[in-house]
Amino acid sequence: MTVVKSNLPEPALRITGAALQETLIDLLGLSLIGKQAHWNIVGPRFRSIHLQLDEVVAAARSYADDVAERAAALGVPPDGRPETVAAAHSLPGPKEGWVKDVDVVQLMVEALDTAIRRLRERIEQTEKADPVTQDMLIGITAELEKQRWMFEAENHQPDER
Amino acid sequence: MTVVKSNLPEPALRITGAALQETLIDLLGLSLIGKQAHWNIVGPRFRSIHLQLDEVVAAARSYADDVAERAAALGVPPDGRPETVAAAHSLPGPKEGWVKDVDVVQLMVEALDTAIRRLRERIEQTEKADPVTQDMLIGITAELEKQRWMFEAENHQPDER
Amino acid sequence: MTVVKSNLPEPALRITGAALQETLIDLLGLSLIGKQAHWNIVGPRFRSIHLQLDEVVAAARSYADDVAERAAALGVPPDGRPETVAAAHSLPGPKEGWVKDVDVVQLMVEALDTAIRRLRERIEQTEKADPVTQDMLIGITAELEKQRWMFEAENHQPDER
Amino acid sequence: MTVVKSNLPEPALRITGAALQETLIDLLGLSLIGKQAHWNIVGPRFRSIHLQLDEVVAAARSYADDVAERAAALGVPPDGRPETVAAAHSLPGPKEGWVKDVDVVQLMVEALDTAIRRLRERIEQTEKADPVTQDMLIGITAELEKQRWMFEAENHQPDER
Amino acid sequence: MTVVKSNLPEPALRITGAALQETLIDLLGLSLIGKQAHWNIVGPRFRSIHLQLDEVVAAARSYADDVAERAAALGVPPDGRPETVAAAHSLPGPKEGWVKDVDVVQLMVEALDTAIRRLRERIEQTEKADPVTQDMLIGITAELEKQRWMFEAENHQPDER
Amino acid sequence: MTVVKSNLPEPALRITGAALQETLIDLLGLSLIGKQAHWNIVGPRFRSIHLQLDEVVAAARSYADDVAERAAALGVPPDGRPETVAAAHSLPGPKEGWVKDVDVVQLMVEALDTAIRRLRERIEQTEKADPVTQDMLIGITAELEKQRWMFEAENHQPDER
Amino acid sequence: MTVVKSNLPEPALRITGAALQETLIDLLGLSLIGKQAHWNIVGPRFRSIHLQLDEVVAAARSYADDVAERAAALGVPPDGRPETVAAAHSLPGPKEGWVKDVDVVQLMVEALDTAIRRLRERIEQTEKADPVTQDMLIGITAELEKQRWMFEAENHQPDER
Amino acid sequence: MTVVKSNLPEPALRITGAALQETLIDLLGLSLIGKQAHWNIVGPRFRSIHLQLDEVVAAARSYADDVAERAAALGVPPDGRPETVAAAHSLPGPKEGWVKDVDVVQLMVEALDTAIRRLRERIEQTEKADPVTQDMLIGITAELEKQRWMFEAENHQPDER
Amino acid sequence: MTVVKSNLPEPALRITGAALQETLIDLLGLSLIGKQAHWNIVGPRFRSIHLQLDEVVAAARSYADDVAERAAALGVPPDGRPETVAAAHSLPGPKEGWVKDVDVVQLMVEALDTAIRRLRERIEQTEKADPVTQDMLIGITAELEKQRWMFEAENHQPDER
Amino acid sequence: MTVVKSNLPEPALRITGAALQETLIDLLGLSLIGKQAHWNIVGPRFRSIHLQLDEVVAAARSYADDVAERAAALGVPPDGRPETVAAAHSLPGPKEGWVKDVDVVQLMVEALDTAIRRLRERIEQTEKADPVTQDMLIGITAELEKQRWMFEAENHQPDER
Amino acid sequence: MTVVKSNLPEPALRITGAALQETLIDLLGLSLIGKQAHWNIVGPRFRSIHLQLDEVVAAARSYADDVAERAAALGVPPDGRPETVAAAHSLPGPKEGWVKDVDVVQLMVEALDTAIRRLRERIEQTEKADPVTQDMLIGITAELEKQRWMFEAENHQPDER
Amino acid sequence: MTVVKSNLPEPALRITGAALQETLIDLLGLSLIGKQAHWNIVGPRFRSIHLQLDEVVAAARSYADDVAERAAALGVPPDGRPETVAAAHSLPGPKEGWVKDVDVVQLMVEALDTAIRRLRERIEQTEKADPVTQDMLIGITAELEKQRWMFEAENHQPDER
Repeated sequence: MTVVKSNLPEPALRITGAALQETLIDLLGLSLIGKQAHWNIVGPRFRSIHLQLDEVVAAARSYADDVAERAAALGVPPDGRPETVAAAHSLPGPKEGWVKDVDVVQLMVEALDTAIRRLRERIEQTEKADPVTQDMLIGITAELEKQRWMFEAENHQPDER
Repeated sequence: MTVVKSNLPEPALRITGAALQETLIDLLGLSLIGKQAHWNIVGPRFRSIHLQLDEVVAAARSYADDVAERAAALGVPPDGRPETVAAAHSLPGPKEGWVKDVDVVQLMVEALDTAIRRLRERIEQTEKADPVTQDMLIGITAELEKQRWMFEAENHQPDER
Repeated sequence: MTVVKSNLPEPALRITGAALQETLIDLLGLSLIGKQAHWNIVGPRFRSIHLQLDEVVAAARSYADDVAERAAALGVPPDGRPETVAAAHSLPGPKEGWVKDVDVVQLMVEALDTAIRRLRERIEQTEKADPVTQDMLIGITAELEKQRWMFEAENHQPDER
Repeated sequence: MTVVKSNLPEPALRITGAALQETLIDLLGLSLIGKQAHWNIVGPRFRSIHLQLDEVVAAARSYADDVAERAAALGVPPDGRPETVAAAHSLPGPKEGWVKDVDVVQLMVEALDTAIRRLRERIEQTEKADPVTQDMLIGITAELEKQRWMFEAENHQPDER
Repeated sequence: MTVVKSNLPEPALRITGAALQETLIDLLGLSLIGKQAHWNIVGPRFRSIHLQLDEVVAAARSYADDVAERAAALGVPPDGRPETVAAAHSLPGPKEGWVKDVDVVQLMVEALDTAIRRLRERIEQTEKADPVTQDMLIGITAELEKQRWMFEAENHQPDER
Repeated sequence: MTVVKSNLPEPALRITGAALQETLIDLLGLSLIGKQAHWNIVGPRFRSIHLQLDEVVAAARSYADDVAERAAALGVPPDGRPETVAAAHSLPGPKEGWVKDVDVVQLMVEALDTAIRRLRERIEQTEKADPVTQDMLIGITAELEKQRWMFEAENHQPDER
Repeated sequence: MTVVKSNLPEPALRITGAALQETLIDLLGLSLIGKQAHWNIVGPRFRSIHLQLDEVVAAARSYADDVAERAAALGVPPDGRPETVAAAHSLPGPKEGWVKDVDVVQLMVEALDTAIRRLRERIEQTEKADPVTQDMLIGITAELEKQRWMFEAENHQPDER
Repeated sequence: MTVVKSNLPEPALRITGAALQETLIDLLGLSLIGKQAHWNIVGPRFRSIHLQLDEVVAAARSYADDVAERAAALGVPPDGRPETVAAAHSLPGPKEGWVKDVDVVQLMVEALDTAIRRLRERIEQTEKADPVTQDMLIGITAELEKQRWMFEAENHQPDER
Repeated sequence: MTVVKSNLPEPALRITGAALQETLIDLLGLSLIGKQAHWNIVGPRFRSIHLQLDEVVAAARSYADDVAERAAALGVPPDGRPETVAAAHSLPGPKEGWVKDVDVVQLMVEALDTAIRRLRERIEQTEKADPVTQDMLIGITAELEKQRWMFEAENHQPDER
Repeated sequence: MTVVKSNLPEPALRITGAALQETLIDLLGLSLIGKQAHWNIVGPRFRSIHLQLDEVVAAARSYADDVAERAAALGVPPDGRPETVAAAHSLPGPKEGWVKDVDVVQLMVEALDTAIRRLRERIEQTEKADPVTQDMLIGITAELEKQRWMFEAENHQPDER
Repeated sequence: MTVVKSNLPEPALRITGAALQETLIDLLGLSLIGKQAHWNIVGPRFRSIHLQLDEVVAAARSYADDVAERAAALGVPPDGRPETVAAAHSLPGPKEGWVKDVDVVQLMVEALDTAIRRLRERIEQTEKADPVTQDMLIGITAELEKQRWMFEAENHQPDER
Repeated sequence: MTVVKSNLPEPALRITGAALQETLIDLLGLSLIGKQAHWNIVGPRFRSIHLQLDEVVAAARSYADDVAERAAALGVPPDGRPETVAAAHSLPGPKEGWVKDVDVVQLMVEALDTAIRRLRERIEQTEKADPVTQDMLIGITAELEKQRWMFEAENHQPDER
């Protein structure tokens, strides 16, 4: 069933479609991980990090929507079903149960770092394939790098130099 | 690591905790399925159902938050990680790729129907165990039954009697 | 023409459907009576009661919508046509023409009192039949009892003890 | 009991009072019919028409308020009680039970058409009697004619020429 | 100094200009009288009438702006200076000092009644001269007649028949 | 293809339909001319006129929508396609390239003046044909005459008497 | 002086009235304690807890209003005067003077815990007496248990397991 | 435990701290008294005074926050605990049970009058001690004097001269 | 008829009452003068000054309300009737008819300057008599001095040094 | 008349200027075509597509403004006059008269497809000439491709595979 | 070039002008220092202090505007150019590079303390010179003292007594 | 003290860090210069330019925040302290004292032109080094070029060709 005819030529379409599908999975994974930490965090910084995580989740959900609709707009049906997310996402996430605030902060630095590294590769890949998609990935990267900085700054230990 | 001391006695706590964890999984599953359909739907009713699905997703996400925080408030750490959702949710969902509008409507009737049947069982189970949790499950059921009606009314075929 | 398949068994469905249909008629009746008084009230408390009546009407309209859609969600088509409302509603209402403010206040106390007494019976009837519907009726009763108090407090005469 | 002294002479007052009272009944009838259809509609256009009907109801309620308060402002107590509406309104309305979307659209075209024809007669009657009332009736007609067009355009069948 | 060239012919311009200038004075007078009563009212209905008067003032100020800018738009410079308002307005107003609430209500009925009677004459005068101006005067009359009704209904004495 | 059945008799329909179609073209023309001036104006009053022009454009667009939907509501399909606007509109507009602020002000006075003169003729023509349409044209004329006055007042030269 | 006639029979009214009066005192006590801590807290988590306390206070004030008006609606005049609150409330509160952030968190866990335990008893007592009141108490308990969890999670010490 | 170092010298600090603490108690007392009257008022002016009392309470709560945080800002820990309010506030308040509207109005005039007289003394005392605190007390007095006037005007009896 | 008992001693009350009454007249005069200029201004700066004048009028109206209610709060009935404003205000104002923009700017500088000089005298007079009233007059002066600066800066001629 | 000095060198300026002028014409054409379809659409999907078209028009108008002001910012006066739009735009548009909903959807797919193909060429052309302009064109393309997808998905026929 | 004629006599003008110019510099300095800390803070309280600093900056910017426009209103051109700020401001600020959260809190206490001490001197100096300016400085001091308290409370160490 | 680990390699990080730091200084300089002109401008266009300058300042402040946080996100601590801004910014700014409106417009054209030229160089430098940063600089350039055009268009003299 062909629905949306793309005006990107093969293989540009294949590269762009893959970049968008992988980004979708990372963002949906990030939104689920972020909520898991939002609910299970404990420790003296509970409230502050609890609120910050909701901002990450809101951003991840909104970008996931942009990315999935961008794929559809190019004629590539996006796949964000639970089983696909579980099978394909590759970000480190929290263990089951309560998580201490210091561990959440460290975890978010790592999850965001992984997502960013993968996004930067896709920015390069899509430069020629589709500058419109590339521009969207650049915008997402800017936001995730800002979030990573805020967790990294928060992660700085009192006696660290 | 014990964090939140529950004031529900065992086994009331065990019953309530299980009811909340299962509801969480169903709601997260519903939110992912709803978005998948939102992105992949095609057909003459595209716009109308596309918008309706986002209302289901918004409700499912908001209730998932309520339910997970209710579990935490009772001392039961909620589990909404991608792998848990994929392994445990039991709602029927769309196949990969584009989905026709009539199939989406049928699918949502079935997914909501499954979720509601399971919620009604938990309303009975929690009546004695924890009326506060029961009241939350009643509110969720009311909303999902309203959503199911709207898809079912939409599903009525022109020549059906 | 069967449209929405209910997941309530007979006779729970029959009890719940009747409770919702009767509540719908009372609320539509209340909204029409309230507007009639809103337009025809005269006397030194005109402005104060004129505004208060619009709050009753807004509440009655909003609950009528909830109740009718709840009936539909259970597979029972609601009936709120003018002739049905006129034939079936049982609240006392104003006579034709201008009404004095003291009479309006007394009238609203009586109309609300009648509606509440009938709602309380339905709360009992639906407890086993459908706790989701019961919860909705409880919420409506709470609001109407608050409105009744405010008219009753307003009704207190200066020299009454 | 005379309350508001009108500054319209007889028989201008009688003509204008009748025009407003009849318009009030039609608008209250329209609001009840619209809600009835809003709750009982089924078929593939459910959501789209369901929402459109609420816009008709909102307009009808707001205009009914304007018209009733205009009558009161001229010294004519308006009558919008359930029994009056049931006895006096003359718009075609839905039968009891579920209604198919195509039938709802057709019904709304007819109900609006009837209301408009009657309004146009009153615009003529009130031109000399009270230009202030006439101006209000003109505004209501403009809105109802816009609503009728939208249902009529929606009513156009795919194979119609 | 000619600034705005009117496209109304003499004497239509003269009639319309006079109608607007007189209406401007009445509305500015009404806004000052309304505020005077708003500040000086005493008695058991203080709060209710105090608030209602501010709605009259807000309407009078807004219409005064419309009317003055309409005159300017026709090439007639409007005159709303303090001395002109004091010399030319003809509405009954409160005496100096505190005013009892019953007296304020009576006063507003009379002031609005005077303003309305004068507006109705101007509606007739401008019908041929300028239907655009007439339409504005009709709108103002509708609002002031509504305000008059509300004070008149409020003015009804408990033992009046 | 007949879609919307008008309840205006011929020739009232023909007169009204023509009045609306011509008004639509003038308003679309005005909105394009206004934007052209908004972008190309230069001179010491740049910011002030640049902002004022956007208010004209917003009004013209909104009225164009009203007028076109009014035509449709009467059964006359409106025509606002680029080629129709270019061929039929008759308002003076700016030349290509930058335009000095004094010239823009003069130009807007003339364009609005032309549009108003034509609207005033249609107000007369539609008085008997359709008072509902006439009322809409009166409202548009009131706004455009206000806009013309503001540009005319702005156009007054410092040394003019 | 009898004002509001209750439609609850004795002794249901006595049970419900007592439950509401006691809840009112606890909520007013909680709002005063919360503000006291809001003003006197010191330590590295000052800003975070300072803000969180204002959310507790806002909830407590809003629920106190609901509870007091519910008592009035049942015909029981509520008592929330300063001396009654001081004499009757039984929640642990802060000592005079500055309070360290860790102590505030611990204190809020205890105060909320006490309030919740007492609310849970009243939920049982009112189940038969008045399900409308019970539903209100259930809603309050849900919110306070959520607040308790957030303070308890915040209370978790870095080296606790 | 010294937390905030004041930059006011002794005894200016002592005078200012006492003025703020006493004002805090009066304002908290006023907010509790106002709510008590808001819930227990009966009589024909119920709605009007019920709403006015909530404005007094909102103002009293907001100023209490300003005053307590001002004390903290000067290094004086404020004391607003239930027992302190009950022991120290000196405003006349309502008896237990329903209160008639005329009595509520009289009571509010007296309570506000007492609060204002005490505030005026503190304005004098703090003039030299701390003009920043004095300015805050002046602002509170202006608002309370406005509230007192409104209750006093409302208190004027129909036959009073 | 004594209504509001002042807690200012004679002659402090007489000084303060006079200061407020005079300020009221100046502010009402300013609001009428500002509107007159707003409607009659012509010239190349029409739009800019037309908008600025409305900000002056809005401020003058709002302060007039504060000042009149302050007088009432002290037991002095304020007098803002048209004839009082015309007789007592002493600000220079525009002549009848169109006014050139440069003249409007000059006029506003003078009118504001007069109002400010008179306010500054009253600030001195009320310092001892009533610091609460003084504080209000200081706030008004700050705003009017800001408005005067803006007209004065606007008044600077291109070739002035 | 040179007004804005560009800091782009020739021929970069010529390329960029042309790209912007052509985009402006396409967007203005799209906004007029979209409104024409918005007014003339008939068929069972009337309401859904009617609303969707207004979103296209809103986007097209907003981007037209961005593009025209970007041209001006580079020193190139934009040309969006009616005659230029009619002569230069190259998008397929609706015929005169009513248009069936299926035809509107097909038409919008084609019009958007044409606009997008032309935009993609200009993205390449401006990459070296002016990356700032290129970034704006990329943003417009992303939005139009999203709109095209939504019409294309809507265009999918029930029996299509 | 004399622009705004002051109505303060020399030397009151000189004293007031100096007080405002110095306050302007301190506030601009504070806004730059606050932003510097907002960007460079690291440590476990990152998010909490990062947000709090933005509130200080927003207040400082808003007051700087008030103070500069107050100087202009008195005829004294304010000087807030970068070189003036750098040369004249005297608040302690952060070193280059990342700053630990504890150091930021300490720094803000000191910077605010310095600003407040200098403001308190100017409040005394301007009392006679210009009470309008004094009132503005009092308002700024109140806010900065509140900010200082919040940082000081936050600065309290866990083991401090 | 290393805080944020960058994922840009050297020397890309050095190039990007320098570009961001220089942009920060230019934007902070622009915001201070813009405010200085906002306060000190005089002449017949005072109000219009006074308002326009605040839009430039708002944009400059918001972009400065983006740029500084982008630097931090890359691991480069931004430096926006007063002394750094004064020493490093290179935009032309106003002299001390009042500035005539024509001179302000000319000054803003020059300051924006300088900032833009420097930004265009950094867009080239960062293209390879960091496309995410480049995209941010492109967005800032677009806005500043739009602002420059508006001042340049305003700068056009009446007799210029």
